[in-house]
Amino acid sequence: MTRTRFHEGLDELKDRLLRMAGMAEQSITRAINAYRERDRDQCKLVFASEAAINADEREIDELAVDLLALQQPMAVDLRFILAVIKINADLERVGDQAVNIAERVEQLLTVPAVELPIDIPLMAETASKMIRMALESFVLGDADLAEQVLTMDDTVDRMNHDIADVMIELIKKSPQVTEQAMDAIIIARNLERVGDHATNIAEDVIFWVRGADVRHHLGRS
Amino acid sequence: MTRTRFHEGLDELKDRLLRMAGMAEQSITRAINAYRERDRDQCKLVFASEAAINADEREIDELAVDLLALQQPMAVDLRFILAVIKINADLERVGDQAVNIAERVEQLLTVPAVELPIDIPLMAETASKMIRMALESFVLGDADLAEQVLTMDDTVDRMNHDIADVMIELIKKSPQVTEQAMDAIIIARNLERVGDHATNIAEDVIFWVRGADVRHHLGRS
Repeated sequence: MTRTRFHEGLDELKDRLLRMAGMAEQSITRAINAYRERDRDQCKLVFASEAAINADEREIDELAVDLLALQQPMAVDLRFILAVIKINADLERVGDQAVNIAERVEQLLTVPAVELPIDIPLMAETASKMIRMALESFVLGDADLAEQVLTMDDTVDRMNHDIADVMIELIKKSPQVTEQAMDAIIIARNLERVGDHATNIAEDVIFWVRGADVRHHLGRS
Repeated sequence: MTRTRFHEGLDELKDRLLRMAGMAEQSITRAINAYRERDRDQCKLVFASEAAINADEREIDELAVDLLALQQPMAVDLRFILAVIKINADLERVGDQAVNIAERVEQLLTVPAVELPIDIPLMAETASKMIRMALESFVLGDADLAEQVLTMDDTVDRMNHDIADVMIELIKKSPQVTEQAMDAIIIARNLERVGDHATNIAEDVIFWVRGADVRHHLGRS
């Protein structure tokens, strides 16, 4: 394989990863729309996307393995490929979180709708924005932007805690809405995990861009 | 680097990963002991281990990068190194789950102890056994053993659901123990995630051992 073909391979790897990121983010959006609109059809779209996302993950891994096997990459390309492999695993798990949320929504559809004093869609929008920013930092190779994602994770964690606190108080006062409140707590926790995956992706971007610095901090060079 | 030095590097990589797995599993054990014995000291040991586990993860990644950079690995070695990189990330997150459990136990120590009709230690033992079996399948390169881990995940998922169901019924009857019951639900979910990480590790072992077969199923070769 020529150097040019190799770099075409890297470009393809990046494109495929971005397409997969788009699918994962779309699944989260659909799962939250399903929650907001009590819409079983959007749950089904999320379940249907899961197999496609899983197949994408495996194919991206294979492409990365092929690139590593066919050409001795330079250090910077090597770190890029490894970052792709790790980001790939996190995106697949974002898709899993969308499935978890959609399953929870299906359960919610079996109990009466209640108005809850929390804002799940706002939390979802924040977590999704973290994913988009993490991917943008990857495309741009921008470690500073990746660091902004790390700080946003505190916001999402706080939203998660606040929602849990409000729901526990509600359960104590109104045990008849325990199921609905529990489902909200669990959906919030799923969104918090989406934020964790965005954080992982941002850390991988920092590892890729600033590889030497990270080692320095560990006192190994 | 000679071929022999390279294989020594692979051995070191495996040894370090196994040591890290031991630490991660120990953290889960300590977190569950802390839960069972209401022991804040064991929580502190879990928090202290987190930094060591995170540093280990980074160093194992660096060692893997060095091996990839310094020698063009053969396909089987390449897949092995990539499996290590992925397993490494999962083990670090097992450590995170131990931290999550220990944080929850600290919260539990602020409310009165209540006897709950569930068996968290049994669930923890099952999830830990999955981690041990997944690592054993990695050491032996045994894809059949890895597949047994995948089936055990259903058991852990069922335990998680059962604990949640029992706790929700309890909350409805006895809202005054909502905190304790919620903490049990969340600890069970953390253990379920430990099972998920064991599943991921087992899948990585299968990917490593049966790389060609996986591609075949995707219709790419």
